[in-house]
Amino acid sequence: MRRAEGFIAVDWGTTNRRAWLIDGAGNCVGEMEDDQGILSVERGQFSEAVNDIRRRLGDHLLLMAGMIGSNRGWVEAPYVPCPAGLSDLAERLVWAEEGRTAIIPGLSYLTDGEADVMRGEEVQILGAVAADMVPGDCLICHPGTHNKWINVVDGRIIGFNTVMTGEIFSLLKEHSLLADLLRLPATTGEAFHSGVRRGLAHDGLTAELFSVRARVLLDQAKREDAASYTSGLLIGADIRVGLRAAPEAEVIVIGRPELTSLYASALVEAGQEAREVDGEASFLAGIRQLAELI
Amino acid sequence: MRRAEGFIAVDWGTTNRRAWLIDGAGNCVGEMEDDQGILSVERGQFSEAVNDIRRRLGDHLLLMAGMIGSNRGWVEAPYVPCPAGLSDLAERLVWAEEGRTAIIPGLSYLTDGEADVMRGEEVQILGAVAADMVPGDCLICHPGTHNKWINVVDGRIIGFNTVMTGEIFSLLKEHSLLADLLRLPATTGEAFHSGVRRGLAHDGLTAELFSVRARVLLDQAKREDAASYTSGLLIGADIRVGLRAAPEAEVIVIGRPELTSLYASALVEAGQEAREVDGEASFLAGIRQLAELI
Repeated sequence: MRRAEGFIAVDWGTTNRRAWLIDGAGNCVGEMEDDQGILSVERGQFSEAVNDIRRRLGDHLLLMAGMIGSNRGWVEAPYVPCPAGLSDLAERLVWAEEGRTAIIPGLSYLTDGEADVMRGEEVQILGAVAADMVPGDCLICHPGTHNKWINVVDGRIIGFNTVMTGEIFSLLKEHSLLADLLRLPATTGEAFHSGVRRGLAHDGLTAELFSVRARVLLDQAKREDAASYTSGLLIGADIRVGLRAAPEAEVIVIGRPELTSLYASALVEAGQEAREVDGEASFLAGIRQLAELI
Repeated sequence: MRRAEGFIAVDWGTTNRRAWLIDGAGNCVGEMEDDQGILSVERGQFSEAVNDIRRRLGDHLLLMAGMIGSNRGWVEAPYVPCPAGLSDLAERLVWAEEGRTAIIPGLSYLTDGEADVMRGEEVQILGAVAADMVPGDCLICHPGTHNKWINVVDGRIIGFNTVMTGEIFSLLKEHSLLADLLRLPATTGEAFHSGVRRGLAHDGLTAELFSVRARVLLDQAKREDAASYTSGLLIGADIRVGLRAAPEAEVIVIGRPELTSLYASALVEAGQEAREVDGEASFLAGIRQLAELI
């Protein structure tokens, strides 16, 4: 219904935000991206930060996903417990401005002793399912600051597991003893795959990380390989967690292409078929479906 | 020989330095500590930074251990390969100022595919052995920014393994999404032990770390327990690595009391006897022995 008038879809994260203008036919006819993540908006200033989006893309209904609904965001949108599908998200939408600006809730997953949460990825996952970009039953890997392993059954998310890989890699790169070794971008060459094999085979990631420096100091590894090796190490250890319940079929890797390619390459090294799906296309598919449901 | 005249012992690390004045009888008769770690001394300024120590403690022979001998320090003191004892360190001393100022080399450990290095801890370990504070055959745990697990056989260090526990905990505390949850000091209560059990039992540290936040958000854990739980988690995972070759006898934990107490408590949780030995006393025992050998 809303879709006939067009709307603005927003993915508002911790450190940046993206917005797309979707017209009545469902086409994306405008977009913007900036570094106004929720942490750079002061409490009380979110209404103005949203006005800024409307000034740039037009005065439309606004549907927002991501950390904007967290306790550090604008209005907290309580987590929807798993299992959950798109209709559950639509029912639990939180209106920050009644009838004008809505926040899509994230998901929570609780199961004996395990606790996990997500905000933003659920729109991509369920969007990819709704648009038949991925099967209704699959294991999805969603790399990012916090990589998610997501079980989809009958088109709904039944559970997930978050691994802090991206954030740990950033911390190491920016603030650790390894920082000067991690300046180059990680690429999927032999150093990366050797890191992946090591991460897959060995428990004790915090010990493996120190050896990155020791290997260079003792001429066992080349300095220029350190970033790719370390990325491989972290992703290998991550995949060890994700493949605890290895699927029969392929793993779907959804997200930004520069990250999905690293994970897909590492999954193949782990003997697992992997297919990459674009995160932006998935997000837009999901939010278009949600716009139909409200 | 040198000992008759007295000398200054220096433990010069990355972020701070400590120095002790040892008299001819081997007694510590003066000391200083400040934040002039090697990273805060510009290249070319080390000679002046050493003069500063002599101005404060007297014009004596100076024996220095730690990162001062690294490639970021004053003069690089090449690593001595394991196995190594105090006499090997004495033979490979590097004189930054001939006959006046010496740097004690660190150790390296290379064994098929594994590479590791240490600088500073070796003086404490071998000092504790030389002073009969610990047996000549033992497994030593040395917590710090980089925790070391050290195998001592016949009074010599035959190999070791570094786990980046302390640095990862600092990075999480200062720069991560968990920062606001990790403000309280870690103490050895139930939250710590629950973290230790989890770290000992579960592979996948980077996944466990994210759950710290999720557990608080979903009311599965108390916010004020997060720092102790996370410390336990990291130390539990560390001990998993260290006890791969579990010793029959006790593990000796050498270092700063606030850290050795956490590790000793976690080792007991892991079913291992543990004994704490003071790192400063061990360091002074080691450097006194070295002063005798040169």
